[in-house]
Amino acid sequence: MKYFNCDYNEGAYPPILKRMIETNLCQSIGYSEDEYCEEARNIIRSLCGAPDGAVHFLVGGTQANLTVISAALRSHQGVISASTGHINVHETGAIEATGHKVLSINTEDGLLTAEMVEKVCHDHFADEAFEHMVQPGMVYISSPSELGTIYTRKGLSDLRKVCDKYGLLLYLDGARLGYGMADRANDIDLPFLYNVCDVFYIGGTKQGALMGEAVVIRNEALKKDFRYMIKQRGGMFAKGRLLGIQFLELFRDGAYFKLAEHADRLADSIRKAFEDKGYRFLVESGTNQIFVIVPNNAVEKLNKKYVSSNNGPYDENHTVLRFCTSWATNPADVEELIEDIKAL
Amino acid sequence: MKYFNCDYNEGAYPPILKRMIETNLCQSIGYSEDEYCEEARNIIRSLCGAPDGAVHFLVGGTQANLTVISAALRSHQGVISASTGHINVHETGAIEATGHKVLSINTEDGLLTAEMVEKVCHDHFADEAFEHMVQPGMVYISSPSELGTIYTRKGLSDLRKVCDKYGLLLYLDGARLGYGMADRANDIDLPFLYNVCDVFYIGGTKQGALMGEAVVIRNEALKKDFRYMIKQRGGMFAKGRLLGIQFLELFRDGAYFKLAEHADRLADSIRKAFEDKGYRFLVESGTNQIFVIVPNNAVEKLNKKYVSSNNGPYDENHTVLRFCTSWATNPADVEELIEDIKAL
Amino acid sequence: MKYFNCDYNEGAYPPILKRMIETNLCQSIGYSEDEYCEEARNIIRSLCGAPDGAVHFLVGGTQANLTVISAALRSHQGVISASTGHINVHETGAIEATGHKVLSINTEDGLLTAEMVEKVCHDHFADEAFEHMVQPGMVYISSPSELGTIYTRKGLSDLRKVCDKYGLLLYLDGARLGYGMADRANDIDLPFLYNVCDVFYIGGTKQGALMGEAVVIRNEALKKDFRYMIKQRGGMFAKGRLLGIQFLELFRDGAYFKLAEHADRLADSIRKAFEDKGYRFLVESGTNQIFVIVPNNAVEKLNKKYVSSNNGPYDENHTVLRFCTSWATNPADVEELIEDIKAL
Amino acid sequence: MKYFNCDYNEGAYPPILKRMIETNLCQSIGYSEDEYCEEARNIIRSLCGAPDGAVHFLVGGTQANLTVISAALRSHQGVISASTGHINVHETGAIEATGHKVLSINTEDGLLTAEMVEKVCHDHFADEAFEHMVQPGMVYISSPSELGTIYTRKGLSDLRKVCDKYGLLLYLDGARLGYGMADRANDIDLPFLYNVCDVFYIGGTKQGALMGEAVVIRNEALKKDFRYMIKQRGGMFAKGRLLGIQFLELFRDGAYFKLAEHADRLADSIRKAFEDKGYRFLVESGTNQIFVIVPNNAVEKLNKKYVSSNNGPYDENHTVLRFCTSWATNPADVEELIEDIKAL
Repeated sequence: MKYFNCDYNEGAYPPILKRMIETNLCQSIGYSEDEYCEEARNIIRSLCGAPDGAVHFLVGGTQANLTVISAALRSHQGVISASTGHINVHETGAIEATGHKVLSINTEDGLLTAEMVEKVCHDHFADEAFEHMVQPGMVYISSPSELGTIYTRKGLSDLRKVCDKYGLLLYLDGARLGYGMADRANDIDLPFLYNVCDVFYIGGTKQGALMGEAVVIRNEALKKDFRYMIKQRGGMFAKGRLLGIQFLELFRDGAYFKLAEHADRLADSIRKAFEDKGYRFLVESGTNQIFVIVPNNAVEKLNKKYVSSNNGPYDENHTVLRFCTSWATNPADVEELIEDIKAL
Repeated sequence: MKYFNCDYNEGAYPPILKRMIETNLCQSIGYSEDEYCEEARNIIRSLCGAPDGAVHFLVGGTQANLTVISAALRSHQGVISASTGHINVHETGAIEATGHKVLSINTEDGLLTAEMVEKVCHDHFADEAFEHMVQPGMVYISSPSELGTIYTRKGLSDLRKVCDKYGLLLYLDGARLGYGMADRANDIDLPFLYNVCDVFYIGGTKQGALMGEAVVIRNEALKKDFRYMIKQRGGMFAKGRLLGIQFLELFRDGAYFKLAEHADRLADSIRKAFEDKGYRFLVESGTNQIFVIVPNNAVEKLNKKYVSSNNGPYDENHTVLRFCTSWATNPADVEELIEDIKAL
Repeated sequence: MKYFNCDYNEGAYPPILKRMIETNLCQSIGYSEDEYCEEARNIIRSLCGAPDGAVHFLVGGTQANLTVISAALRSHQGVISASTGHINVHETGAIEATGHKVLSINTEDGLLTAEMVEKVCHDHFADEAFEHMVQPGMVYISSPSELGTIYTRKGLSDLRKVCDKYGLLLYLDGARLGYGMADRANDIDLPFLYNVCDVFYIGGTKQGALMGEAVVIRNEALKKDFRYMIKQRGGMFAKGRLLGIQFLELFRDGAYFKLAEHADRLADSIRKAFEDKGYRFLVESGTNQIFVIVPNNAVEKLNKKYVSSNNGPYDENHTVLRFCTSWATNPADVEELIEDIKAL
Repeated sequence: MKYFNCDYNEGAYPPILKRMIETNLCQSIGYSEDEYCEEARNIIRSLCGAPDGAVHFLVGGTQANLTVISAALRSHQGVISASTGHINVHETGAIEATGHKVLSINTEDGLLTAEMVEKVCHDHFADEAFEHMVQPGMVYISSPSELGTIYTRKGLSDLRKVCDKYGLLLYLDGARLGYGMADRANDIDLPFLYNVCDVFYIGGTKQGALMGEAVVIRNEALKKDFRYMIKQRGGMFAKGRLLGIQFLELFRDGAYFKLAEHADRLADSIRKAFEDKGYRFLVESGTNQIFVIVPNNAVEKLNKKYVSSNNGPYDENHTVLRFCTSWATNPADVEELIEDIKAL
């Protein structure tokens, strides 16, 4: 079987493992206070044009989300999210377990607009009984979203404005950030992202690392004591060096962006194959995730050879399948898939 | 101004105050271990036909909800609620503050059906990634609901079945339980309620007490150590006797039910006045809350003399107002309101 | 049996009940936004010389403690307390249930000194692995303490200094504040207390109210959004007027202080009787609690007529008993007790 | 500088990295549902003589502790621990952040005895106000302890009995379990450990893995839904295979035990060198940690060449230093250290 079900089926971008072996018996200080981490932090600060940015390495996305969000909110505050947001659906209530409600908003495409956030905040503060309701304290967005769609420069700037108006923090979950930046429609870069958000993370796990996410903080209040928060939530990695090394190698010579480019272009060609076949998509997107509406008899045929992710029935005769490419996807496998799509 | 905005504007059913004064300087043991509380617990057990039921007195509804729900759930579990449910809207995230997600379901009338709960549970366990999502652990319902509607015997029995199928606890918030039982359409009684639910509470605050809710527990596992939970959540009332006395007086000679009857019949007559005027209602109900759709110019006129609760615009030209009666509502005030409605 | 086991055996200072009855059917706004509460808040602000102080009424002490402490701390912070502190012993882990560690310090007399706090803070920040440990964020003190002892002006000023040095909030639990201020050794008043603490509460439950504690906040950051916190923790009292009325009556003509004086002077006379008998005390104190070391055969005799609180064995032959007086203690009962002590 | 400050300065036991590279581009299912993890779980079950044991792989020790403890306790329960226990000191309040109090007990050597636990439990349930205090729900022990000492078969059996008496779970933190089993005084093995505990974990991070701890559960109630708990706390590792591979390689041909043997024997020789010099130890131990009392002038000399862990002053003239060996310690470095100790 060929796996197109997700973007974390394989191990790591090979130079990462090479560097791990080279440094395996070097002794270094724990908990990400070593020189590899420091160098990786500097590279990320430099890429973001953010000499004052705080950078922390965490092992996984749920951990990053729960640590950032619980560190940022006071106890009576909640976090606004698209109802499809990872924190609202696929983290077993990790945010609620830290005491905070996810204030979910239904969207068409997994993306929040400034208008949606404005409405939630306006309605909250306009209500006589506002103190009886959870106060919005942060906006959580993911780009690419869980549907593979991305935010534009305009969309983010508008969100920033409404966040400023209501004193909200803006947090971007970049588990697949590279795949978003390699989307042909992308118009944002890291310095813009740094300046428009209070905090965001650059995903490693789904983009070539064994594991690891780099949380980048601009907000001064949130910077304070953040390492305590990491430790308290179980995210302080003993052999921190391993996280530093991975981001060092991912950002060496722009590898991170090239790996994402690889995945997105392969996704484009699969997308085109489905399109040529006349299939429609759940949403338009240009990243490494494809949500395609497939006739049920074609689903059966595809499932014999390819593992995709079943996102449930679209209607009586169609099913939504998600195909993912990744930094590790073999172009030959994609060629084969395209041929098989043509033959459906 | 005449207040019809809620059902807790006044103090207490006078015999309660009388008894408080009579017993004021009697010395008694604290924390509801006194003889008044014990007698009140016995009366409630008797009314419920529940010799083994555990009865606990708490000061308020949010406190009862957060104590019961957090005591019942394991950390990965959430509580299913109508999206209009008090715990989902008007408790400032009290449930989330104890670590649990509210799994909300949109409804027309504030009432959950067995089908709705079945769908949530089925979808959860049918999902491949079910362990990445909050597990349903309890169903929270309020009767009357926040929209004044009530559950039927059939509706509750069906909910019980789906709860049993999926191992969920069924919890009924009876902040206005008496008003529900005095609804002409009501077909449930306390023994039925005791047997169909795992736990419910009989509201005092909105039904003639200064404060106080009586939590009644049938579920054996939930009974265990419940007083620790009350204390931990700040709900252990030092002079517990005061809560016992109130329920003693409320249930003496069926006062609780008569007071509710008083409120509901007055509400019926207001409802009829609006109906005669041709006004429609947000939902059909027969309890002490009336959600009426009022032309905006009529709203202005009513507001000059009557305080009601503004539930937001219905459409461009209409607003939803909530009128509440209570155990303390003066019939003369209702007469006056009816005349004024006629004159609109 | 005569009860000397605690200071909440009786109901309320009679004028409170009188006023409740007078206002029973007046309609008022809920949730402490009524005129009675506003007047009571103004009186308290005036007594504290604190026009900008925020005053909130809560039902009980554990609720006050958990709401204040969880509102004040960030998630990685803990609260320093004497190991005998109410929050560390007798609140079923209410503070921990909001996510915060109690950093306990052993003391002789239930009182913290600036040196003790200095040591905890110094050791924390001097440790290489400080981020792996709970950061002190607040100092919790109770005056009178759980042992009946009180803080002096000097002791509190010194605590303030160490709190300022390390950025800690200072919180005083005044469940028995009046009894402390009526101690002959007392040298503090409310304006001093307001200025030396960030937040404190004036206890009502143990000092003549049916229930109720008045939380007084000076710290600006803590004032913000405090009502949300109250609601979230289940402490927003629907018929808030009842709390306002109680504090109005307690502070009318200085009743609060006179009631405390009554209790403390009666305690003094009991204390003297034990002293004359040659009995020693666990700690020296001048408030309404007496911790006396009683020979076991005398314990038996006392227990036949008087309910006191057994605080465990002192040594093989002696037991520590706690005798409490209160605002409601009958002087004739005290006379009788003194005679019986003499006769032991 | 030579590092003897901890046991996680280096990377991984080389065969682990070799296997990672070999399998790097194999596609596998995520979240530890792959074949490598399954094989590793089977090996662990087999080593424990526990065909029904549940085995879960987590990334780190704090994460393991907070997940296990919060999964096991009801909200009003706390966990008993030595005051030196990792959960009580060095996890930034991770346990409290999940809502539970650590009930700490002072010990001489970091080890709990059945008598100590008996006293805490007896005192709790004998207290009249027991519901006002945190109920003991679990006993947490670490073996080796944070002081390098180990539990005996007798000590654990006695703890089991007191746990059974009071309905407590027994949880052993085995971050350095191998080093404990390689202690010459050790008399326990894995099957015994499995049967005496409800749950324990086999540490990887400090014993040759890049990261990873294997939680082994015998208690049926705790097994249920444990993967939800892992996910909720941020511990569900996407590329789970990496954890499986590491334990596979660690347990291949008993490598885990040999690596620990290596560390402990080197520690023995360092210990002997200090002993020959007349230095005393904070506690007697035979594992890879040495807590030696060093004259301050000798500390200075050692610090020029060796990084150890400073555990604070012993008295005016002495300091406690911790020297750690590990699976990766170079025997030549130990030789050099021994020579330098002789020369002090």
